[in-house]
Amino acid sequence: MSRFRVVGKSVPKIDGLGLVTGEGKFAADYSLPGMLWGKILRSPVPHARIVSINTSKAAQLPGVRAVVTGQDTLKRPYGQFEGTAWSGADMYALAVDKVRFVGEEVAAVAAVDELTAEKALDLIEVEYEELPFVLGIEEAMRDAAPLVHEAIGSNIVHRVDYAYGDVDAGFARADHIREDRFATEPVNHCAAEPHAVLANFERTGKLTVWTSTQNPMRQREYLAGTLGIPQSSIGIRKPYVGGGFGGKHGNVNQEFCASFLSLKTGRPVKIVLTREEVFAATRGRHPIIIHLKTGMTVEGTITARESLVYLDTGAFSSDSKHMLGRMGNHLTSLYRTPAVRTRGCLVYTNKPTCGAQRGFGGQQMRYADELQIDLLARDLGLDPLDVRLRNAVESGDVTPHGYRITSCGFKECLETVAAASGYREKRGKLPRGKGIAVACGGYICGLRVPIESAAMVRIDLDGSVVLSTGSADIGQGSNSMLCQIVAEELGVTFDRIRIMTGDTDLTPPDGGTFSSRVTIQAGNAVLRAAAEVKRQLLQAIGEQRDIPTDVLDVVDNQIVLRDTKRPLVSLEKAVKQCPPLLGTGYYLNRDDVVQMDVNTGAGNLSPAYSFGAQIAEVEVDESTGKIKVEKITAAFDCGFAINPQGVEGQIEGSISQGLGQAVSEIVLRDRRGATLNPSFLTYKVPMVTEVPKITPMIVETIEPEGPFGAKGVGEGMLLPVPPAIVNAVYDATGKFVNSIPLRLDKVYLPA
Amino acid sequence: MSRFRVVGKSVPKIDGLGLVTGEGKFAADYSLPGMLWGKILRSPVPHARIVSINTSKAAQLPGVRAVVTGQDTLKRPYGQFEGTAWSGADMYALAVDKVRFVGEEVAAVAAVDELTAEKALDLIEVEYEELPFVLGIEEAMRDAAPLVHEAIGSNIVHRVDYAYGDVDAGFARADHIREDRFATEPVNHCAAEPHAVLANFERTGKLTVWTSTQNPMRQREYLAGTLGIPQSSIGIRKPYVGGGFGGKHGNVNQEFCASFLSLKTGRPVKIVLTREEVFAATRGRHPIIIHLKTGMTVEGTITARESLVYLDTGAFSSDSKHMLGRMGNHLTSLYRTPAVRTRGCLVYTNKPTCGAQRGFGGQQMRYADELQIDLLARDLGLDPLDVRLRNAVESGDVTPHGYRITSCGFKECLETVAAASGYREKRGKLPRGKGIAVACGGYICGLRVPIESAAMVRIDLDGSVVLSTGSADIGQGSNSMLCQIVAEELGVTFDRIRIMTGDTDLTPPDGGTFSSRVTIQAGNAVLRAAAEVKRQLLQAIGEQRDIPTDVLDVVDNQIVLRDTKRPLVSLEKAVKQCPPLLGTGYYLNRDDVVQMDVNTGAGNLSPAYSFGAQIAEVEVDESTGKIKVEKITAAFDCGFAINPQGVEGQIEGSISQGLGQAVSEIVLRDRRGATLNPSFLTYKVPMVTEVPKITPMIVETIEPEGPFGAKGVGEGMLLPVPPAIVNAVYDATGKFVNSIPLRLDKVYLPA
Repeated sequence: MSRFRVVGKSVPKIDGLGLVTGEGKFAADYSLPGMLWGKILRSPVPHARIVSINTSKAAQLPGVRAVVTGQDTLKRPYGQFEGTAWSGADMYALAVDKVRFVGEEVAAVAAVDELTAEKALDLIEVEYEELPFVLGIEEAMRDAAPLVHEAIGSNIVHRVDYAYGDVDAGFARADHIREDRFATEPVNHCAAEPHAVLANFERTGKLTVWTSTQNPMRQREYLAGTLGIPQSSIGIRKPYVGGGFGGKHGNVNQEFCASFLSLKTGRPVKIVLTREEVFAATRGRHPIIIHLKTGMTVEGTITARESLVYLDTGAFSSDSKHMLGRMGNHLTSLYRTPAVRTRGCLVYTNKPTCGAQRGFGGQQMRYADELQIDLLARDLGLDPLDVRLRNAVESGDVTPHGYRITSCGFKECLETVAAASGYREKRGKLPRGKGIAVACGGYICGLRVPIESAAMVRIDLDGSVVLSTGSADIGQGSNSMLCQIVAEELGVTFDRIRIMTGDTDLTPPDGGTFSSRVTIQAGNAVLRAAAEVKRQLLQAIGEQRDIPTDVLDVVDNQIVLRDTKRPLVSLEKAVKQCPPLLGTGYYLNRDDVVQMDVNTGAGNLSPAYSFGAQIAEVEVDESTGKIKVEKITAAFDCGFAINPQGVEGQIEGSISQGLGQAVSEIVLRDRRGATLNPSFLTYKVPMVTEVPKITPMIVETIEPEGPFGAKGVGEGMLLPVPPAIVNAVYDATGKFVNSIPLRLDKVYLPA
Repeated sequence: MSRFRVVGKSVPKIDGLGLVTGEGKFAADYSLPGMLWGKILRSPVPHARIVSINTSKAAQLPGVRAVVTGQDTLKRPYGQFEGTAWSGADMYALAVDKVRFVGEEVAAVAAVDELTAEKALDLIEVEYEELPFVLGIEEAMRDAAPLVHEAIGSNIVHRVDYAYGDVDAGFARADHIREDRFATEPVNHCAAEPHAVLANFERTGKLTVWTSTQNPMRQREYLAGTLGIPQSSIGIRKPYVGGGFGGKHGNVNQEFCASFLSLKTGRPVKIVLTREEVFAATRGRHPIIIHLKTGMTVEGTITARESLVYLDTGAFSSDSKHMLGRMGNHLTSLYRTPAVRTRGCLVYTNKPTCGAQRGFGGQQMRYADELQIDLLARDLGLDPLDVRLRNAVESGDVTPHGYRITSCGFKECLETVAAASGYREKRGKLPRGKGIAVACGGYICGLRVPIESAAMVRIDLDGSVVLSTGSADIGQGSNSMLCQIVAEELGVTFDRIRIMTGDTDLTPPDGGTFSSRVTIQAGNAVLRAAAEVKRQLLQAIGEQRDIPTDVLDVVDNQIVLRDTKRPLVSLEKAVKQCPPLLGTGYYLNRDDVVQMDVNTGAGNLSPAYSFGAQIAEVEVDESTGKIKVEKITAAFDCGFAINPQGVEGQIEGSISQGLGQAVSEIVLRDRRGATLNPSFLTYKVPMVTEVPKITPMIVETIEPEGPFGAKGVGEGMLLPVPPAIVNAVYDATGKFVNSIPLRLDKVYLPA
C-alpha cells in the first residue's frame, strides 16, 4: 500500500478533454476583430550583403497595411538566456545589412488576408550582393573560409580545451584504446503544431501575444528587448501547445514580426509558419562530428577519455556555447571516468541556426559514447552490458565535470531491461539479420537559470482548489502532474484541482519547459504553495475549535483528527468559516547547483540526474537495407513516478522520436543550403505502424530534492534510442555504421 | 507637506485610456466564433397562471437553436446574499407556473442572429390564465387583496416593529411633535451601458461568462446554484462596466438565460438587454411611503422619533428585507435620537422587483428625515442648519441601532458648506422665487457579507508591480485608488503598478462593489498584500547585504537606507537578486461589525461611517413650476481622500444623479403595471446643461480602520440632494411638497 493517495497513481491528462473534443485552442486558432495576416520574406541566398530593399510596390498593393525590414527595427541583437555567460547575442529578428542563410528573415508584411500578404512578399524588391558561403563544418574551419560574421574574425565562435585528471596517465594505464569518428545529421522537431503567433497592440500601451511557446516569461523578455518596450507592457498567452521538443524554446523572429507589425498598424496581426518554414528556418538539432578516444582495461574499466567535438551552429550562435559545454558534461555523466580531456569548436556555417532539441547536449554525445562502449566491449570480448554495469555511476559519485549524483537507479535499470528482454539468453545467439543490443541514457532534471519557479495555491469558496503557475505544459502532461502534487499535499482529491497557467500577466514567474526542469523546480514551488495554504487552513480551523493545529490533517476533502482520521468538517464547509486561503511558494536551486562555466565545462548543473537503459531488438533485411525495429525494452529512473501513465507516455514518445532520428529523419539541404525536403512527405517521421513494441518500465528511486522523491522524465529516454538501434544493427549484420540516420544505403549489403 | 508620496494626490483613472480610445471592451463588445444571440420572452400580463407554453413553432423557425422555459430549468429559486438572514429566495430565472409582473422572464431563445431570435419570441405560444393583480402598496396590504405569492398567505412578506429607548417618555418630553407622510416614486439606475452577457459552455465542462456585473464572485455563486453546477466550473469575466449604481448587483435572469442556452446548444450565447428591457424588468429603486413622527424641544433637540415604512418590493423580495432594516438604521445615523420606534412592512405588488440602488436603504429615509428636520425647525423658529448641528452625532457615539461612530467630520461638513455657500448671509434674505437650504447624508463603508476581500501583490521581473484583486471597478475608479495604495505602501511610483482584476478564476476572492465597501475592505486587503511583498523584498535584500531589514526602506523605486534615504539599489535591479516576490493579504471585518438582525434592525453594520452636508440654491418659476437648481455646495467626510480627484468625481456624479431623482425622474407605469416611459426620450435624466454649479469639498478625517485613514465615497453624497432641493424650493416658494420627484405640477402655483 502506498502511503500516498494521489501521487504515484495514474491520472489522465487534465487538459485531455480539450484536445479530444477540439475545444482546446492553439495559437493559430485565435482571431481578433480587424486582424491582419503577417507573412515573412526569407532570404533566397545563403550569404549576401543587402544592398537595398524597396518595399514601395508591396506597400501599395491594395490590402497591405504595413511592410517592415531590418532597417525599421531597433536593430537590437538578442541571444539565448540573457543574463548568463551562455548568451551569444548575434541574431536579429529581421536581417540587418546581411543575410547568412537561405530562409533568414528579411522583411515582414501585414495585410488583410493571407493571400494578399503572400502576394506582397513577391513585390518586395531586395538587391543582394552575393558573398562566398560555407556550408560544411570542416570547410568552415579552414583559414580561407568565407566568414559568416566578419566581426568575429573566424567561423570558430567558441573553442574549449580542458581536462580533468591525468589523461596521459589514464591512457597509459589502458590495455586497449580506440579512436572513432561519429557524425549526426540535422533533424527537425516535427511538432504537430507549427509555430504560430497572434500579437495585439492596443493604444493603451499593452501588447498581448498569443504564441506557441515553451517559455512564456522568456519570450516576454526577448520581445521587450527587441521591441524596446518594458516587459510589463507585454502579456504572453500560452494556449494549448502541440509539442515543443525544444523547437519552441526562445524563438523570437515570428513573434517579433507579428508584434512589430501590430505596433505599426494598431491592429492584431497573426503569423502562422508553414511546415516549409518550420523546416527551413526554425532551429533544429545541431549536426556534429565527434572524435572520441577511450582507454579501457581488459576487464572493461574505463581509464581515460578524450573527445573532440565540432559543433555546427549554423548562421547564429543561439545557445550553442552551452550545448558545447553540455556535450563534455554528458560524456562523463553515466560512466565513471578517472581522466578526461574535452576539446570542442563551435562553428558558424551559412545554414539555418541550430538550437535546442529534446536531450539538448546529451543526445549526440550519448550516441557516440554508447556506440564506442559497444565497439570496445567487442574488441575486448566482453559483454557490452557488463561493461556498462562495471563503469556505471552510483549515488554519491561526483563526475569529473562536477555533477553530484544523488539518487541513482542506473544499475537497476540495466539489470531490469536485461531481465525483461531476455538479453542474456539472446545476445550472441540470434541468427544473422537479427540483433539485440543495449544503450543507456539519462539527463539533468533542471538547470540554474535567471527565472526559476514560483506558484500560488488558493482554496476557492466552494472548496475546490486553484493552482496558479507560470510553468508551461506543452503537451508533456506537466499540468496533471502539478495538480497531483497539490492534491496530495493538501489532502484533497484530484478532481478538486483546477490549474491556471499560461499567462505572464497573471501567474507567478516560472522559467518554462526545458532541461526536464518542471517536475523538480515547478513541482517543488507548487508543493510549497500547497503546504502553505494547508497550514493556513488548519490554523484557522484549529483556532476556531481551540484544537492544536498539529493534531489536524486533511484527508480526502475532509478536515480530520490526524491520529484517528475522525472527520471534523468537510473542506467545502470549512472554507466558508476561514479567512481567504492563499498560499504562495517558490523553489530556487540549491547553492551547489550552478551555471556551467562555458570555458571549463565545470559545474553541478542540476539538482538531480535521471538514468535509464534500453534494449533494442531489430531485424535487418540486408538485401534492401531495411531495418525493422521489433522491440524496445526500456527502464527509467525518474525518481518517484508521480503520474506513472505520464512517465510511460514520455518513455514511449521518446522512443518513437528517437526511432525516427535513428533510422530515417534528416533535413536534406542543397548546395546552397536550401532545404530539399521541407514536408512530411519527404522528411520521414516514423508512422505509427513502424513504432516497435515498447515495454516501458519505471525504476523508482527517491530523490531527496524532488517533490515526493520525483526527478524528471521528459528527455532522458530519447538518448539511448539511436545507439541501441545502431548497436543492434551491428549485432545483426556485423556492419558498423558511424553516422545516423541509418538510411538504407548505409545498411544495404551489396549482393 | 504630506507625509505621503502617492496617496492623497490626484491620479487619472488608470483605465481611462481604454475608455477614451474605445479600446476598453464592455460585455456586449465580446463575440465568439459560432456565437448565437439570445432573446427573452417577457410576460405581457401583470399576474397569471401559466396554463401552457408551446415552443414548437419557435423551435422550428430556421436559425433557431434552442428555446427554453421555466419547465426546462431546475426550478431553483434564488435570492440575494445567500448565507445570510436577508435572503428571500423567491425568484426564478425563468417563470415557473405563474407570472407576477409585466416584463417577467417567461422563456428564452437562442438563434443565429438577433432578428431571428426576436422573430422566434413571437412564435412562442403562451396560454395565460389571468389572475386579479395589485399594484399599489396600500391596496396590496388590504385583507382581500390578490396574493402575489399564495404560499406566503399575505402580501406583507416581512414586518418589523421594535423600539430603542423609552419612546413614550421621549415624546412626552417634547415641546413640539410633528407627524408627516412622505413618498417616493420608482426610479431606474440609467447606467449608460445596458445589461449584457456572453456565456460560453465548453464540453470540457467549463462555463465562461462575460457579464456586466458589480459582483463577479456572487454572480458565480448564483449561477452555480440555479444551473446546478459547481462554482469552480464557472468563470465570470467582468470587462469594463459602464456604470452599475446597484443595478448590476446580483442580477441573474439574463446571465442564467445565456448560460442555460449555451449549456443546451454547446455554443456561445450573447444577450444584450434593450433599454426598454432595462427599464421594464431590472431592479430599480423601491418606491416607499414613510410616516415619520418626531418630537423636539424648543431649543431644537430631538427627544423621540417613530417611523412607519411601507416598502414596495414588487413581485419578488430581492434584498428588500435588508432594505427595510437599513431604513430604520439610517433614521438614527446622523442625529442623536434618545428613543426610537421603527415599524415597517415589506409588501409584494405585481410590479417589477425592486433592488439595490446607490444609497440603498438610506436615500429614501434621509429624504424624509431631512425634510422633517426643516419643517420642525420652521415650526420652532430655528435655523435648520443649527438644528442639525445641535443634534449631529460625533465620534464615539453609538446609535440606538448600534452603529459605532469612529471618525466623524459631520459638524465640520455642516460648517464648511455654510461658510462656503454664504448660507448664513443668504438664508431668509432671498427674494421670493429664490431659495437656499441644507440637507445631510452619509453612508456605511462596507458590510459584513459571506465573501470579504483578499488580494495579491507580485513584483514582476522588471521591477513593475502587479496587483491582483477580485474587486470590481464599475466605473467608480476603485482600480486607480487600489493601485495608489499599493504604490504608497510599497514605495514605488504609481506608473509602476498594473492591476489584474475581473476574473473569478484568476483573482483572489472579493465581495465586489456595493455598500461603499471597496476602499476599506478591498483597500485594506491590498495594503496588507503590498506590505507583505515589501517585507519579502527587504528581507531578501537585507540578507544579501547583511543589513538588518528594519534599516531598509523603499522610496521611489529605490531600496534605500531608512534614515538617510541613501539609495542602495534600484528595485529593478534588486528584484533580479531576490527570490520570487509574492505577497498576499486579506481583510475581514472586525468582530464588532455584524450582520444586521432583520427583526430588530440591530447591529454595527460597518467598520466606519461617512458623513456629509450640502447646500442647494434654487430658483423657481412659480408660473410654470420650473425649478432651476443653481448651485450645490457639498462637503464630505470620506476619511482620508486617497484620490481627491476621484472623490470629487463621486461627489459631482452623486449630485447629478440625485438632481434627476429630485426633480424629474420617475418610471411611469400604466394600469396593468407596464412601463410607459422606457426610454431616455421620455424618462428624464438631467442633461449636462441642467447640472448646477457644484462645489465639492473634502473634509478629511483619519479613520483608524481605513487604509491610510480612508473610508468610502460612492454613495453618501447622493442622499442629501433630493431633500436639499425640496427644502430650498420650500424656502423659495413656501410650498412644501412631500413626494419626489418635484414635477412641474407639484410646484406650479395657479395664478
